[in-house]
Amino acid sequence: MTRMVTILCLLFILSACGDKTNRNTRMVSTPEELDEALKSLEAGDDIVLANGVWKDVQIRFVGYGTEKQPITLKAETAGNVIIGGKSDLKLGGEYLQVNGLYFTNGSSPSESVIEFAINQDTVANHSRITNCVIVDYNKAQRNQTDLWVLFKGRHNELDHCYIAGKSNRGPTVRVDLAGNKSIKNYHKITNNYFGPRPPKGGPSAETIQLGNSFTSMAPSYTLVANNFFDRCNGEVEVISSKTNFNEFRNNVFYKSEGSLVTRHGNYCIIEGNYFIGDTSSEQIGGVRLIGTGHWVTNNYFYNLKGKTFRSPLALMNGIPKSPLNRYIQVTDVVVAYNSWVNCTSPWQFGVGSNVDQKDILPASEIRSERPIRTIVANNLIYNTEADKRPIVAHDLLDGIDFKSNVINNQGASFEHDSAFKQEDFSLSELEENIFIPANDLPDFELYHGFEFDQITKDLFGNPRANNNRVGAISDAPEEKPNLMDLSQYGPDWYPLKSTKEISSKIHSVGSMAELETAVQRANRGDTVLLTADKYEMNTPLKIDKMLTIKSADANKKVIINYTGAAKTPAFEMNPKGQLTLIGVDLKGTNSQYAFASLQNNMSSLYNMSVRDCEISDFDYVLKAYKYSFSEYIKFRSTLIKNCTNGLELSEETDGRGEYNAENIFVDNCWFENIEKNVIDYYRGGYDESTVGGNLVVTNSTFTECGTKEEDGILLNTYGIINVDLSGNKFIDNQVELVARLWGAKNNSHSGNVIKNSGELLVEENLPLKLMY
Amino acid sequence: MTRMVTILCLLFILSACGDKTNRNTRMVSTPEELDEALKSLEAGDDIVLANGVWKDVQIRFVGYGTEKQPITLKAETAGNVIIGGKSDLKLGGEYLQVNGLYFTNGSSPSESVIEFAINQDTVANHSRITNCVIVDYNKAQRNQTDLWVLFKGRHNELDHCYIAGKSNRGPTVRVDLAGNKSIKNYHKITNNYFGPRPPKGGPSAETIQLGNSFTSMAPSYTLVANNFFDRCNGEVEVISSKTNFNEFRNNVFYKSEGSLVTRHGNYCIIEGNYFIGDTSSEQIGGVRLIGTGHWVTNNYFYNLKGKTFRSPLALMNGIPKSPLNRYIQVTDVVVAYNSWVNCTSPWQFGVGSNVDQKDILPASEIRSERPIRTIVANNLIYNTEADKRPIVAHDLLDGIDFKSNVINNQGASFEHDSAFKQEDFSLSELEENIFIPANDLPDFELYHGFEFDQITKDLFGNPRANNNRVGAISDAPEEKPNLMDLSQYGPDWYPLKSTKEISSKIHSVGSMAELETAVQRANRGDTVLLTADKYEMNTPLKIDKMLTIKSADANKKVIINYTGAAKTPAFEMNPKGQLTLIGVDLKGTNSQYAFASLQNNMSSLYNMSVRDCEISDFDYVLKAYKYSFSEYIKFRSTLIKNCTNGLELSEETDGRGEYNAENIFVDNCWFENIEKNVIDYYRGGYDESTVGGNLVVTNSTFTECGTKEEDGILLNTYGIINVDLSGNKFIDNQVELVARLWGAKNNSHSGNVIKNSGELLVEENLPLKLMY
Repeated sequence: MTRMVTILCLLFILSACGDKTNRNTRMVSTPEELDEALKSLEAGDDIVLANGVWKDVQIRFVGYGTEKQPITLKAETAGNVIIGGKSDLKLGGEYLQVNGLYFTNGSSPSESVIEFAINQDTVANHSRITNCVIVDYNKAQRNQTDLWVLFKGRHNELDHCYIAGKSNRGPTVRVDLAGNKSIKNYHKITNNYFGPRPPKGGPSAETIQLGNSFTSMAPSYTLVANNFFDRCNGEVEVISSKTNFNEFRNNVFYKSEGSLVTRHGNYCIIEGNYFIGDTSSEQIGGVRLIGTGHWVTNNYFYNLKGKTFRSPLALMNGIPKSPLNRYIQVTDVVVAYNSWVNCTSPWQFGVGSNVDQKDILPASEIRSERPIRTIVANNLIYNTEADKRPIVAHDLLDGIDFKSNVINNQGASFEHDSAFKQEDFSLSELEENIFIPANDLPDFELYHGFEFDQITKDLFGNPRANNNRVGAISDAPEEKPNLMDLSQYGPDWYPLKSTKEISSKIHSVGSMAELETAVQRANRGDTVLLTADKYEMNTPLKIDKMLTIKSADANKKVIINYTGAAKTPAFEMNPKGQLTLIGVDLKGTNSQYAFASLQNNMSSLYNMSVRDCEISDFDYVLKAYKYSFSEYIKFRSTLIKNCTNGLELSEETDGRGEYNAENIFVDNCWFENIEKNVIDYYRGGYDESTVGGNLVVTNSTFTECGTKEEDGILLNTYGIINVDLSGNKFIDNQVELVARLWGAKNNSHSGNVIKNSGELLVEENLPLKLMY
Repeated sequence: MTRMVTILCLLFILSACGDKTNRNTRMVSTPEELDEALKSLEAGDDIVLANGVWKDVQIRFVGYGTEKQPITLKAETAGNVIIGGKSDLKLGGEYLQVNGLYFTNGSSPSESVIEFAINQDTVANHSRITNCVIVDYNKAQRNQTDLWVLFKGRHNELDHCYIAGKSNRGPTVRVDLAGNKSIKNYHKITNNYFGPRPPKGGPSAETIQLGNSFTSMAPSYTLVANNFFDRCNGEVEVISSKTNFNEFRNNVFYKSEGSLVTRHGNYCIIEGNYFIGDTSSEQIGGVRLIGTGHWVTNNYFYNLKGKTFRSPLALMNGIPKSPLNRYIQVTDVVVAYNSWVNCTSPWQFGVGSNVDQKDILPASEIRSERPIRTIVANNLIYNTEADKRPIVAHDLLDGIDFKSNVINNQGASFEHDSAFKQEDFSLSELEENIFIPANDLPDFELYHGFEFDQITKDLFGNPRANNNRVGAISDAPEEKPNLMDLSQYGPDWYPLKSTKEISSKIHSVGSMAELETAVQRANRGDTVLLTADKYEMNTPLKIDKMLTIKSADANKKVIINYTGAAKTPAFEMNPKGQLTLIGVDLKGTNSQYAFASLQNNMSSLYNMSVRDCEISDFDYVLKAYKYSFSEYIKFRSTLIKNCTNGLELSEETDGRGEYNAENIFVDNCWFENIEKNVIDYYRGGYDESTVGGNLVVTNSTFTECGTKEEDGILLNTYGIINVDLSGNKFIDNQVELVARLWGAKNNSHSGNVIKNSGELLVEENLPLKLMY
C-alpha cells in the first residue's frame, strides 16, 4: 500500500514538473520588447514585464494556450509594474493569464481598460485576469464612456483584483453577450475587492453589468462570487444583471449605495450574500427584482435603510407586455431562507407602481402588473426597535404566497401581518455586523416548496438537513466568516488601508504668496491657517486635494479680495479637490466667480464645504460646468450677497438623467441681493430608476433676490428627486415662485415664511422628457 | 468468458422479470369501477379499460409510479376503448402511462382533452401518452376554446398518437410553462401523426404551441421529433415556438398550410426536417424566424410556394425594443446546410417590414429592425425552372453574412446574387419528394463558422467529416427514409387510409319525400339525382356530409320551390356539410334564406359549391352565422336575382382577427336586383400574421343591386387580406363604391367595366382596430 502511494505521489510530481519544465519565460523591459514578445506566442510561454512604470502601452495579448499550458503575461513583482498614461490591454485566443499588473495614473485610449477581445472575430476564452489593480483610471470627463473590464468570449475570469474609483460614464465591469461566441459564457468574477466608486450623478455607473436589454434573452451563466463591494455608490444599481442564469453567491455588499438588481433577464440565483447598511444612509439598498424565476436564498441583510427602489427587498411591478428595455413582470420568484436584521421596511412589493400616473405617462410606462406566482417563505426578520411597516405593499399582494415567515417586531402591530408568525426571540452577535438567532427561536413547521429540497445549506454552509430553521442561518458556523477581514478580498499585495490614511499638518500662512505655496504643497488632509487679516488674490487658487483653509481666529473672518480676470474663480475646484473653507470674507469685483469647477477634464468629482463665511460681489457664487460633478456642496452659517448669480448647477441639459451634484446642503445662510439663479439645480431627462439630486435648504433667509430671474423661480430644482425646504424665510423677492416642487417625488417643504416673494408651488407631475 | 456472459444474461432476465412480476393488473368495465381503481394507485399498477364505448368519463389519473415501476392505464385492446361524450383525462403524479385510448364522438367538458395536471398544485411528471387517437373531438363552436393535449410538469411524452380534425379555437397540443414546475420540461412529442386540421379562419389554431408570450423567457427544452404533419392548415403557424431551447428534429411537414415559427423565445434548434409543398397552394410555408440564436440546419424544403410570412425561409424584421408579445429582432441566427428544391423565392429577409406605414401604425407596431449577426452558409438551392427572385429583401441585407451558398438557377440572373456561387449541377430523385445532388455538384470550400463543427451529420445521418457538401444532404443514405410510408407515424392500429375513402352511390329521387330520405340516408360522397321537374320543399334540407345534388338533365334546371318558414334556409349547412348543387332553380317567397349555417353549434366547417343554378326571391342567398366557418363557398355560372341580401359573411365582429369563410369564389355569375349586402365579407380586428380571407370575383355581372345598401359599398370586403375583382361588369348599381380595396394587402382589380355604379376605390391603408 505504501509503495502504491509512493508511486502515485511520484507520478503526480512528475506530471506537475512536466508542465513547468515546458514553460518558456521571456522578460521584457520596454514596450518594443513586449510587442516583439507578443508576436509569436505558444502554449507554455511566460512573458514577464519588468518592474517599473509602463506608459502609453496598448497591449494586444493574442495567443493559444492550453488548459495545461496556458500563456501568461505577468509582473516581475506583482504591483510593481505600473501601467499608466494612455494604456490598455486586450486579449484574444485561449488560455491566457494576466497577473500582477497595476493600472493607475492614466486612462484607456479605447472603450475599455482590459478587454477579453481583440476585435469582433477574435475573442478570448478560458482566460484570466488575476491579482491586478485598477485605480482611478478615469477618462478626462464623466461623459466619456468606458469600461474597466469588458468580458467577451467564454469561460473567462476576473479574480483577486482591486478595482476602485471609477467616476466616468460606464459600468466598471461589463459582460458583453452580443454574438453566439459570448453566450453561455460561464465567466467568473470572484474574490475581488471592488473599492469605492463615487456617485456619478445619473445612470450608467454600475459596478458590474451583465449584458444589456438587447441581449437580455441570452443565456449567460456568469458567476459573481466572494467579492467585497465597498461603498460602490456609482448609481442605483451596484450590480445590474441583464441576462439569464447568472449567479451571485457569497458576496459582501458593504455600505454600497445601490442594490443588486435583476434588471433584465431571468432565472438568476442570489444566494448567501451579505448586505451591510448604515443607519446614516437611506441610499443603501439590497436586492431589487424584476422578471421571472429568480431564487433569492440564504441572504443576510443588516441595517439597511433604503426605500422603494433601494429597499432591502424590492419586488417591482412590471409593465403589461413590457417593451424589451422596460420592466418585465415579476413571476415565479422564490425568496426563501433569508434574514433581515434591523432593516427598515425591508419587504416592498409592487415597487414602482405608477398606476396613478396613467394620465400623464404613456401606457408603455405604466407599471401595473404586480408580482405573481411568487413564494416568500421561511424568512426571518428581526427588529431591535419596532418597525411600523415591515411590509410595504405598493400594490395588492394577491400574487405572493407568504409561508412560514417569522418576525420579531417587538410585539408591535403592523399591516399585512398575516405574512408572518410573530415570535419573541433574540439574536446574538457573531461578529461585527453579523447577528444570528439565539436558541430561543421557537421551532415551527417550515414550508417545503417545489425544489426547496435543493436549498441544502445555510449561509455558513451548515447542512439544513438537521435542525433546519427559518432565515439565512440555521446554526452557528464552525468558523466565523470574518467578513470585515478585508485581506481575503482582492490581491494580497495592494495596501488597502494606507491609501485611506490622510495627513493633518497645519500650514500657517501670513501672506498671499505663502497661501499659494501652502495650498500647492500641502498633503491630502492638511489645514492652511490664515493668520493675516487680509489677502489680495489675483489668480485662482487651484484646489485638487482634500484641504481645509480657515481663519486662525475662530471669531474673526479673514478678508480675501479676489481681483482676478473676469469669469475666473477665486477657488478653482479641480478633480479630487475637497475644500473646507471657514471664516473667510471673500470679495470679488463683480465679474468673477467665487468657486468654479474646471471647464473641461473634470475626471473626478470635487467637494466643498463653506462655513461661517461671507461671499460678496461675484458674477457667480458657484459655477459648475457641464460634466463636472460634486458629491456634496455645503454652505453653512454663511452670508452671500450682492452677486449676479448664486449656485449654478444646471449644465446637464443632454436629457440623459444626469445632474451636477449629488447633495447640496444650505443651512442657516443669508442670501441677499442675488439677482438670478439663486439656486439653479437641474436634472435633464427622466430616468426613474436613478433617484438622485438631493437639495436641503433649511433655516436660511432669502431677501431681495431674483430681481433679474428670467424663469420667475427663486430656487429652481427642475427634475431633482429629493428636495427639502424647511424653516426658511423668503422676504421681498421679486419672483413668481419661490419654488416649484415635484409632488410625485420626494419633494417637501415645511415651516417656511414667505413674504412678498411669490408662491411655493407643488405640482404632482412635471412635464418630463422621458429617456426611454 | 462464456460463463460470465451467461451469468450476466441471467441477471438481466431476472431483473426484467422482477419488474413484471410486481405488476398488479386490474380490469375495469364501468366508470364506477374505474374511479374506484384510480383511488388507490401504487407503483406497478396496471389499470385495463375493457373494450367498448366509454361515455362521459372524466378520468383523474393520479399516482406515483417509479421509473422502473410506472403506473399504466391502458385499453384492453388498443383502439377498441372508445372515449366519447363529455370525457377528458387528467394526469397527476409521477411515471404514469396511458396507452391505446381512442377519443372520438365527443368533446372535452373542460379546457383540455388530455392534460398533464390535475390542478395547479398537482402536475404530472415523467408521464406518457402513447398509442392513442383523438379525432374530431370538437367543442360545439369554433369560439369555444380548448386544447387536445395540454402539457404541464416536466419530462412528459406524447408519442405514436394520431390526432386530427380540430376545428375549434385553441392549439391542438400546447405546452404550458407558467410556474417553475413546468419549466425545463424536456417534454417529448415524437412519432405522432398529426392528421389534417382544417383552416379555422383566424388565429389560435396552431397544431403545436410551446408556451406563450408571457412565459417566453422560460427555458423549455421541449423536443418535437419524428412527427408527420399532414395538411395541418389551422392557421399560419403549424408550430408556434414561444419559449427557449426547443428542438424540432426530423419532422415531416406535408402540405401543411403554415410554417414552423419561432414566434417568441430564443435559441431553438430546427434540424433535419422535411417541408413538402404543393404547386397548387401558396399557403404552404417553411420556417419563419423571429428572435435570437436559432440554428436551422440540415433541413429539406421541397416545392414550397408560400410568400412573405409563409415563405420557405422567412427571417422577420423586429420592432425596436419590442413589447413582449410582438416581434423581437432576429439576431445571432445560423441557417446552414439546408436545401431548397423547386421553391419559389425561398429566402426572404426582413419579412414584415412595414416602415412605410409608420404614419398609420403606432410606433410599437413598426417592424424596422432587420436581422443582424446572422449567418446563412453552406446552403443549396436548386430550381428546375429559373426563379426570378431566389432572395427577396424586404429590407437591407447588411446584417446577414452569406457564405458558401450554392444555387443552380438555370443560369438566370437575379438580385443579390452575391449571396451565392452559381453552379450548374443536377439532382436525382431518391424517392417521392426527395431529390439529392448528383455527383456533378462541384466541390468548393465550405464555410467553417463558430460551432459549425457541431453540425456533424447530414439530413440522413451521414457523417459530415468526410466528403462534406453544401445543403442538407452530403451523401445518399444507406437506407431510403421512406418519408411517405405513413405507417411509421402514429399508432399502428389506427387505419389511416380508410377514413378517407368515400362512397359514390347515386340516388335518383322523383319526389320531395324521396329527396329528403335520400339526403338523410346517403353516405359521404354520394350523389342525389333530381329526376322530377319540380320539388316543393317546406322544411329545410339538412346537409351534414359530402353530397352532390343535381339535375338529372344537365341541360335543364330542376325547380325547387322553398316555402318554409321565414328565416329558415332551404339548405341548412351543418357541421361537415359539403354540398355541391348543380342545375337547380331555387325559389323562395322572399322571407327565407337559400343557404344558411346553423345558428349555433357549428362544431366543424361546411363547404358549398353552386353551379349552373338560379336563385331568386330570398331574404338572404347565404346567411353565415357567427362562429360558423366555411373553407370554401363557390358560385359558378349562376344567376342570383330578386333577393333582399346576397352572400352575408360578416358576423365575426369580436375584433379577434376571425372571419366566416376562408375562400369565396364567384365566377361567371349574374347578380340582379340584390338590394343590399350583395357580398358582405368581413374580418374584424387586424392580426397581421394571419393572412386569410380570400375573395375572387371574376367574369360576373352585377346589375341594379345595392339599392338599399346602407354602407354605400356594393362588394364589402373590409379587413379581408386577399381580394381579386377581375373581368366583371357593374351596371346601374346605386351605390357610392363598387368596392373599397386594401392597397397595402393583396387586394387587386383588373379589367372591370363600371357603369353608373360608383367608384372602385383602392385605399392603401384602412383604419384598423389593432388586436395588440
